[in-house]
Amino acid sequence: MMFTAQIKVMPLKDLLDPQGKAVLGGLQNLGLNNVQDVRIGKHIDLQIQANSKEEAHQIATEAAKKLLANQVMEMFEVHIV
Amino acid sequence: MMFTAQIKVMPLKDLLDPQGKAVLGGLQNLGLNNVQDVRIGKHIDLQIQANSKEEAHQIATEAAKKLLANQVMEMFEVHIV
Repeated sequence: MMFTAQIKVMPLKDLLDPQGKAVLGGLQNLGLNNVQDVRIGKHIDLQIQANSKEEAHQIATEAAKKLLANQVMEMFEVHIV
Repeated sequence: MMFTAQIKVMPLKDLLDPQGKAVLGGLQNLGLNNVQDVRIGKHIDLQIQANSKEEAHQIATEAAKKLLANQVMEMFEVHIV
């Protein structure tokens, strides 16, 4: 069966996110002053061939740990849909 | 009140995603052959000062249209949590 895994990779809360800070400045220059903070990460969709939702989750987690996320600086969440 | 808006920005389905194709090759080199397709986009968290969930949604959508997403090549979804 084919499963879609959605992986969210975000910079860790305690780390500075310079890309987010730059976008926050851009939004304020556009007059969107209600935005107080911005953090930017990655959203990755994987199409996975697996026998069960659990197997798909395991494969997606392995992909995230080995390649998609740098766990020193980033956290990730996996959802199978 | 403070709201958190989660914005997902993904390349449009009909467009080639070269970053995703590169990651797919990397996963296959790592032996993760069950992964059939990869698409990569952005995940953006905004902290928004607003009077209601609807107002926060409106501000996040404006931010996405004006700065965060290029609607020629990308689609976006806004969720207020």
